[in-house]
Amino acid sequence: MSNAYFFFANRKSEGINAAFLVSFVTLASYALMWDGSFTAESASGQPIFWTRWVFYRISCSLLMLEIAKVKGIKSNGKIAELIFLNVFVMGTGTLAAVTSGLSRWIFFILSSIAYLIQICMVLKIKEVNSKWINTYIYLGWTGFPIVFFLAPTGIGLFGAPIAMGLFLILDIYTKIIFNLQLQQ
Amino acid sequence: MSNAYFFFANRKSEGINAAFLVSFVTLASYALMWDGSFTAESASGQPIFWTRWVFYRISCSLLMLEIAKVKGIKSNGKIAELIFLNVFVMGTGTLAAVTSGLSRWIFFILSSIAYLIQICMVLKIKEVNSKWINTYIYLGWTGFPIVFFLAPTGIGLFGAPIAMGLFLILDIYTKIIFNLQLQQ
Amino acid sequence: MSNAYFFFANRKSEGINAAFLVSFVTLASYALMWDGSFTAESASGQPIFWTRWVFYRISCSLLMLEIAKVKGIKSNGKIAELIFLNVFVMGTGTLAAVTSGLSRWIFFILSSIAYLIQICMVLKIKEVNSKWINTYIYLGWTGFPIVFFLAPTGIGLFGAPIAMGLFLILDIYTKIIFNLQLQQ
Repeated sequence: MSNAYFFFANRKSEGINAAFLVSFVTLASYALMWDGSFTAESASGQPIFWTRWVFYRISCSLLMLEIAKVKGIKSNGKIAELIFLNVFVMGTGTLAAVTSGLSRWIFFILSSIAYLIQICMVLKIKEVNSKWINTYIYLGWTGFPIVFFLAPTGIGLFGAPIAMGLFLILDIYTKIIFNLQLQQ
Repeated sequence: MSNAYFFFANRKSEGINAAFLVSFVTLASYALMWDGSFTAESASGQPIFWTRWVFYRISCSLLMLEIAKVKGIKSNGKIAELIFLNVFVMGTGTLAAVTSGLSRWIFFILSSIAYLIQICMVLKIKEVNSKWINTYIYLGWTGFPIVFFLAPTGIGLFGAPIAMGLFLILDIYTKIIFNLQLQQ
Repeated sequence: MSNAYFFFANRKSEGINAAFLVSFVTLASYALMWDGSFTAESASGQPIFWTRWVFYRISCSLLMLEIAKVKGIKSNGKIAELIFLNVFVMGTGTLAAVTSGLSRWIFFILSSIAYLIQICMVLKIKEVNSKWINTYIYLGWTGFPIVFFLAPTGIGLFGAPIAMGLFLILDIYTKIIFNLQLQQ
């Protein structure tokens, strides 16, 4: 219902209503995971919901637009590069989720390198009013590759249900709580 | 041959030659449906040509650019939001076409909500010279979800050949006749 | 390692660091082909690495941005049309690689028409400092459809290993050597 809230809360705002669109995309992503049609299987027989990484290409590009606004990034070239890097991170992330063996780790490393470049670009911008954004990126965004690494997609420290639960918490923090904080 | 016509008719126009590109994309879409390699099957055994919804992501985004120009929408944020909504409508539409059971209806409803938001944004803009655009959207665009609902993708009131014929008529009206009217 | 070079070489440049991103995308593309999970099979039983055409949608759009800069194309509509045509060329190219029989040739012809329109748009712009770009496009870019035509994806004059080798040479020429020349 978070998307209905953001839709009405932002009715008068100018430009793109990112908060509403992010939660709308996330809702569709969870509907597809619930359907269960498009999943891969890990070596240990655990289901891998790789479609979430396809949806993150869109939702996290929108979040990146919002972060760029808070950080005061004005250059269109810079914003385009950040969104391009996000699409690359999520694209190679998707490939890491659907492949296995050595390929999986190659794509995981490529995705991680692109992610590090991306967040370094964001974090090095010093803005007095945006210090909370850095905490948000450290705790929130960086949680995703860590869960990916520990889940059946990586070393398999825990199973698919725990991975699903952790990703749900991270999604709520990075997409819903973030947007609520942004509107204050 | 409509694409050859639009190509030469717009040779001198500034900016993006949308009419030609729309018919070119539509030609490729029909070539893929004719090939028949990428189809799903409905519960009643009817073929579902889901790839059309993938191509509509591109062709209808271009049509949206043209409609925005006629309606005098200048804000880049507004245009980006309209195109984003179109991609979401067609993306969830594709998922509605490839899934089945309850999932199909969830995606159909998500797609319809995004479509309603999108056309409300367009229809509420009053422009003296663009009244015909509203009729075009009511009769043309809204025909697609109705045919989707009645076809084997929905309640299955009629079969795949009639659905194909109705979509063809709607494609000719919304893409070719629309662009001819635009050039007058 | 070309991508590491371009990353550090362009550290101070404004806007999008296209040279680095192009080689990064190409690296991911080759990793996926090496993995071998997503391949089709030609009528003669040869593997077809169709995913390269999906990655070219991104890398060649970035190259097109660079070419537009050298050629002095300022109009956003023109640049959008060039990138749109590139996505269409690579999209129908992908479909030509995954389908077979008559469909393959239909998509090959559609892709070739879009390619001819695209390079005619670029070549007809006379810029004193950019004459080498034309040679680069004639020798480099046009090599891809020729190899596609002669490889197992087309008439099958030679097998998959030779096709792979020729595409590798073309990739090095059009992506790495091109960017080195651009930086001089």
